[in-house]
Amino acid sequence: MKVSIQGERGSYHDLVANHVFGSDHESNFRSNFTEVFEDTYRGRSDFGVIAIENSIVGSLHDNYDLLLQYELRIHGERYLRISHNLLVKENVRLRDITEVRSHPIALRQCRQYLGKHPLWKVVEGTDTAGSCIDIVKNNLKNVAAIASKSAAEVYGMKILADGIETNKQNYTRFFVIAPSARYSQKINKTSIVFTAADEPGSLGRVFQLFSELNVNISKIESRPVLGRVWQYYFYLDFEAGINDERSKRILEKIHSYVNFMRILGSYKQGVLIDVNKLPLNVNKVSL
Amino acid sequence: MKVSIQGERGSYHDLVANHVFGSDHESNFRSNFTEVFEDTYRGRSDFGVIAIENSIVGSLHDNYDLLLQYELRIHGERYLRISHNLLVKENVRLRDITEVRSHPIALRQCRQYLGKHPLWKVVEGTDTAGSCIDIVKNNLKNVAAIASKSAAEVYGMKILADGIETNKQNYTRFFVIAPSARYSQKINKTSIVFTAADEPGSLGRVFQLFSELNVNISKIESRPVLGRVWQYYFYLDFEAGINDERSKRILEKIHSYVNFMRILGSYKQGVLIDVNKLPLNVNKVSL
Repeated sequence: MKVSIQGERGSYHDLVANHVFGSDHESNFRSNFTEVFEDTYRGRSDFGVIAIENSIVGSLHDNYDLLLQYELRIHGERYLRISHNLLVKENVRLRDITEVRSHPIALRQCRQYLGKHPLWKVVEGTDTAGSCIDIVKNNLKNVAAIASKSAAEVYGMKILADGIETNKQNYTRFFVIAPSARYSQKINKTSIVFTAADEPGSLGRVFQLFSELNVNISKIESRPVLGRVWQYYFYLDFEAGINDERSKRILEKIHSYVNFMRILGSYKQGVLIDVNKLPLNVNKVSL
Repeated sequence: MKVSIQGERGSYHDLVANHVFGSDHESNFRSNFTEVFEDTYRGRSDFGVIAIENSIVGSLHDNYDLLLQYELRIHGERYLRISHNLLVKENVRLRDITEVRSHPIALRQCRQYLGKHPLWKVVEGTDTAGSCIDIVKNNLKNVAAIASKSAAEVYGMKILADGIETNKQNYTRFFVIAPSARYSQKINKTSIVFTAADEPGSLGRVFQLFSELNVNISKIESRPVLGRVWQYYFYLDFEAGINDERSKRILEKIHSYVNFMRILGSYKQGVLIDVNKLPLNVNKVSL
């Protein structure tokens, strides 16, 4: 089984992929999300793993656009508690550090900690674990990375400070995407995307369908429709599987109030993974 | 009257401020949106002008966060058709150009045009008109800016190519913000922000209120609530003034289904300004 992720071994995406697929998969490490969608769409991978929203920075809007652009299905979701650490090469001390590298979002999430070290140069990279690779490969003794504890294990780095994220309520939601739907009996959540019909009030009437049938809406995201000014794609997550009678009634009636609708996936509500409670017996990488 | 805007004279924000306030105002040009909110909140300006969404790139989510953070009111809105141009110093020819500078969103919106000139170095700046200032001040003969026609007028630059945006359906919506509300009889649009009550179905019931009273919802935006994981602030625009009986009924009943609600403003639906039809008799600036 092949799985495409954004990031390197030891990245947060890699931790999620390992949790979902165990040791029985081969990963394709990609530098951006478009490549993950391309791999999954073209059959180079069986699944992709993508972050979709974070409890602090909000939605990854470009990934919502990609969900629409590629006709893939959401196969499942996972929630990961994120906790960042300051990683250096063995023997490097805090006072040796002149520069810190990581993914821009990770850097933002550690702003308070970085504020205590105003002399450090802050450099954005494409990935948390990728910054570790840079440091180890090039034997950089004055540079630290911000990454997971697993990344420290994978690359044999030392943790100089742990839990350095400003806000501890730091969770990221991930989707597992696949070329086609495989529904089980246990599905209890569905994601759709639609544009409201042109009649005034259509949008309100779509939501009314859910409230009449007592189906809870857990997320709404909106994105512009290119070429149709001030029209929006609405992405909705609701708490019922596609095989639920209420979902069937909603999806029957929704067509009167939408111009376009697509089911992005129906899946089981995702479990929460605590990044600090993951097994650390990961494969070490020699660079 | 003092008005704070993000950007320099000749920027798109400046064009909107001139359209709203005429020649009878003094502008405070700021380098970021937080400063615009600060100025308006602290009384250094009477009004602020901020972009809130674009028909191609979507919402400016940070500005939604700032609307919540600062207790200001939306005083009005305007829609501006954006059209970008390639600006250079007098006597500079297309073949002299080695670099192009502009705001990152403007650069993104001209990707197709820039793709035809693969050798140009593309450099992100904080502002479209600010890039013009750089070029004129430093007498840069190999650098072009992407900016409005008005910016060309203001800084005495030459337009080498006009209408270079990829998608002509390029509109930006702006808010005029003020410290307090001044409602006229002509208001027909209202913006609110709320968090849904904890009971399942609350969100659907909020929307149901609007559809029962035939009030059209024109925009929904969602942002994470810090410290309350997977809870969202919902920003709603609806097509009725706050003095409309239907709005009064909605706002009475909404309290049963929300934990928190604030009226961000009630205002008259904004007119569309075509950037290419604005008077060009602007104040020229000598640098």
